Amino acid sequence: MSRTIRLAVIPGDGIGPEVVAEAVKVLDAVAPSAGLSIEKTHFSLGATRFLETGDVLTDYDLASISSHDAILLGAVGGVPGDPRLANANIERGLLLKLRFTLDHYVNLRPTTIYPGVASPLSNPGDVDFVVVREGTEGPYVGNGGAIRVGTPHEIANEVSINTAFGVERVVRFAFELAQSRPAKKLTLVHKTNVLTFAGGIWRRLVDTVGAEFPDVAVDYLHVDAATIFLVTDPARFDVIVTDNLFGDILTDLAGAISGGIGLAASGNINPDGAFPSMFEPVHGSAPDIAGKQIADPTAAILSVALLLDHLGVPDVAGTVRDAVTADIATRQADSPRTTSAVGDAIRDAVASSLAR
Amino acid sequence: MSRTIRLAVIPGDGIGPEVVAEAVKVLDAVAPSAGLSIEKTHFSLGATRFLETGDVLTDYDLASISSHDAILLGAVGGVPGDPRLANANIERGLLLKLRFTLDHYVNLRPTTIYPGVASPLSNPGDVDFVVVREGTEGPYVGNGGAIRVGTPHEIANEVSINTAFGVERVVRFAFELAQSRPAKKLTLVHKTNVLTFAGGIWRRLVDTVGAEFPDVAVDYLHVDAATIFLVTDPARFDVIVTDNLFGDILTDLAGAISGGIGLAASGNINPDGAFPSMFEPVHGSAPDIAGKQIADPTAAILSVALLLDHLGVPDVAGTVRDAVTADIATRQADSPRTTSAVGDAIRDAVASSLAR
Ligand SMILES: CC(C)[C@H](C(=O)O)[C@@H](O)C(=O)O
Ligand SMILES: CC(C)[C@H](C(=O)O)[C@@H](O)C(=O)O
Repeated sequence: MSRTIRLAVIPGDGIGPEVVAEAVKVLDAVAPSAGLSIEKTHFSLGATRFLETGDVLTDYDLASISSHDAILLGAVGGVPGDPRLANANIERGLLLKLRFTLDHYVNLRPTTIYPGVASPLSNPGDVDFVVVREGTEGPYVGNGGAIRVGTPHEIANEVSINTAFGVERVVRFAFELAQSRPAKKLTLVHKTNVLTFAGGIWRRLVDTVGAEFPDVAVDYLHVDAATIFLVTDPARFDVIVTDNLFGDILTDLAGAISGGIGLAASGNINPDGAFPSMFEPVHGSAPDIAGKQIADPTAAILSVALLLDHLGVPDVAGTVRDAVTADIATRQADSPRTTSAVGDAIRDAVASSLAR
Repeated sequence: MSRTIRLAVIPGDGIGPEVVAEAVKVLDAVAPSAGLSIEKTHFSLGATRFLETGDVLTDYDLASISSHDAILLGAVGGVPGDPRLANANIERGLLLKLRFTLDHYVNLRPTTIYPGVASPLSNPGDVDFVVVREGTEGPYVGNGGAIRVGTPHEIANEVSINTAFGVERVVRFAFELAQSRPAKKLTLVHKTNVLTFAGGIWRRLVDTVGAEFPDVAVDYLHVDAATIFLVTDPARFDVIVTDNLFGDILTDLAGAISGGIGLAASGNINPDGAFPSMFEPVHGSAPDIAGKQIADPTAAILSVALLLDHLGVPDVAGTVRDAVTADIATRQADSPRTTSAVGDAIRDAVASSLAR
C-alpha cells in the first residue's frame, strides 16, 4: 500500500526546468521503495510566465499550490537587467510570497564537503553543518517605504520585524535538530552589539529555549565573525541558527566553501504541517547557461533528499545522498557530463542500491 | 617648517594599548619627514574606563576629541559575557557614537594579500580592492525598538534608514576613488531584490552619480553572491561600495581571505573635514591575548598609513606600507616576535628608508 503525495512542481526559469527534470527522475525511481505514490502538478511560474501573461503569482495558483502536500522548485528569475522585468519583482512576488504565505519558518540549508569536491579553501577540514535560517521575519518582511523618491531628499527605510512567536519556534526547531546530531552544538549568529533590539530577542530566546536542552552546547557569534570562521575553521560549526538576512548571506558563503552552490540544497519548511513545505536548490536560474544541458542537477537532487526526510523516509533520503556522494567522487573536471547524464547516473545508482 | 597635527589617541581595551603603542612609534618616526609635528592627547575610554568610572563617553570627552585634527583608536570592548558590562554597550556608546557624531560617512577598508601571507584560499589570485562602507546610516542608525520585552508577545524592530544625502556622498567618494585607481571599477553590493526600498535608492544613486564618471565600469552584486566571489574570485574586485551592515560583513570576510584581520586597517573618514577622521584596525580588543605582547600590531600600523594618506602625505604613507610589506615577507610562523619587536622592526625600516 502506498501513500499518495501530491507534489506541486515549479520548474521556473533558466536552468530550473533542466535540473528539476533530473530531480523528478530520481524521486520517481525511489518512490515505490519509499512507499510513496507521487502525483505531480506542474506550475508554469517565473519570469517566462510573467513575460507571457503579466502574472507573477495569481491567487488561483497560490491556492492551488497550497492544496498540495509538498513543492519542488527549480529556480526563478529572468535575465538580469532585462528591461521588461524592471517592474516585476519575481523574487518578492513569487519566491518570497510562497515562503511567507506558506509559513516556511524554517529554511534548512545543510553544508557538507563531499569527498572529491574541490573547495576554494586549502584546508577546510571535516565540514558538516546545517544552517537553520528563519524564513518569515527579519529584514525580509517587506515592511519598508520611501518618500521623495528620486529627489535629493529621498528617504528609504526597511524595517526588520522580529517576534517572540517567530523567533521562538525556529530556535526550538534548531535546538531539536542539534540534539539529534552527534556534535549537539548550536551557534546563534546575529549582530547583537549593533542591532540591539533584534539581537536582544534572539539572544533571550536562545537562552530560554536552550534551558530545555541542557545537552546542547550553545555559542554565539556576530555575523561578521561568523564569516571569518566559515573560511578559517568551518569544521567548528554544527547547527547555526540565524535570521532571514544573515542566513541568506551565510548559506551562499557556506555553499561557496563547500565547492559551489551547484551542490547546495534547501528546504523551506513549515514544521507544523499546516502548509506544504518547499524544496529547492540554493542556486539561481543562471539564464546564461540555460538550455545547454551543462547545469549541475545535484543541488536539485539533494533537495529531493530533503523532501524525503520531510516525508518521513530518511533511509530513502540517505540512499539518494549516498548515490550523490558516490557520483561526486567519480566526477572529472575535464570531462563534464550533461545535466541528464548526471541525473541518469544517480537514478541508476539509487535504483540498483534499492534493488539490493 | 612643520605642520602641527593634534592627534587624539584612544588606546582602548585588551590589545588596543599594545598595538597603538607600536603604531605611534611608527608615526613618530615618519612625522618629521612628512613635515608633521604630532601633538598627542591620550583618552582613556572603553570597557576598562567604564568599569572604573561608569562612563562610556562623556559629552566633555566627545567635545574634546572633536577638537582634534584626527583620531587613532586601538580597539574597545571588554571580556565577552562580563556581567558588569551587561548594561553597557561599549560598541554603540563609544565606537558608533564617535562614527556617527563625527559624521564618518566613509569607512574605508582596503584589502591586499601581502606576499608571504598565508590565505585560507588555495588560489586567491592578485587581490587588491577597497571596500567603501557607508558609516552613518543603514541598519546601524539604532532606530529600533521593542515592546512586551521578555514576554511571548514581544516584537522587536530595527529600522534601516537610507537618505539620498547620505548615499549620494559616499557613492561619489567611491567613484572618485575608483577613478583614481588603475582598474577603474566599482561594484555596488546590496540586496536590491529583497530590500527594494533601500536597494532602490542605492541603485538609483549609483546610476546617477556614475553618469558623471563614464570611465569607471560599474557592476552590481547581491550581498550573498558577493560573499561567494570573495572566496572564489576575490581578484575581480577593485572598489566595492555598500551600506553599513553589508560593509561590516564583507570587510571581515575580506580580512579573513587576505590572511587575517590582524592585517586589516580602516579609516573612518569625514571627507568634508568638518570633523576629525578616525583610524583603527578592523580587529577587536581580543582580551584573551591582551598584555602578552603577542598581538600583531600590523593593522594598527597600516591604519597610520591611512592617516598619513588622509593628512595629504601619500608618499610617506607608501613608505610605511613598503616597510610593512617587507616585514611581512620575513615573518616565520614558527618564530613569532613580540608586538613591540614587530613595531621596532617596522619603525627601523621606515627610518632607514626615509634617511636615504
Ligand atoms: C532570490 C532571493 C530572494 C533568495 C533569498 O534572498 O532568500 C535567494 O538568495 C535564496 O537564498 O534563496
Ligand atoms: C564593534 C562593531 C560595532 C563594529 C561594527 O560593526 O562596525 C566592528 O565590527 C567593525 O567592523 O568596526
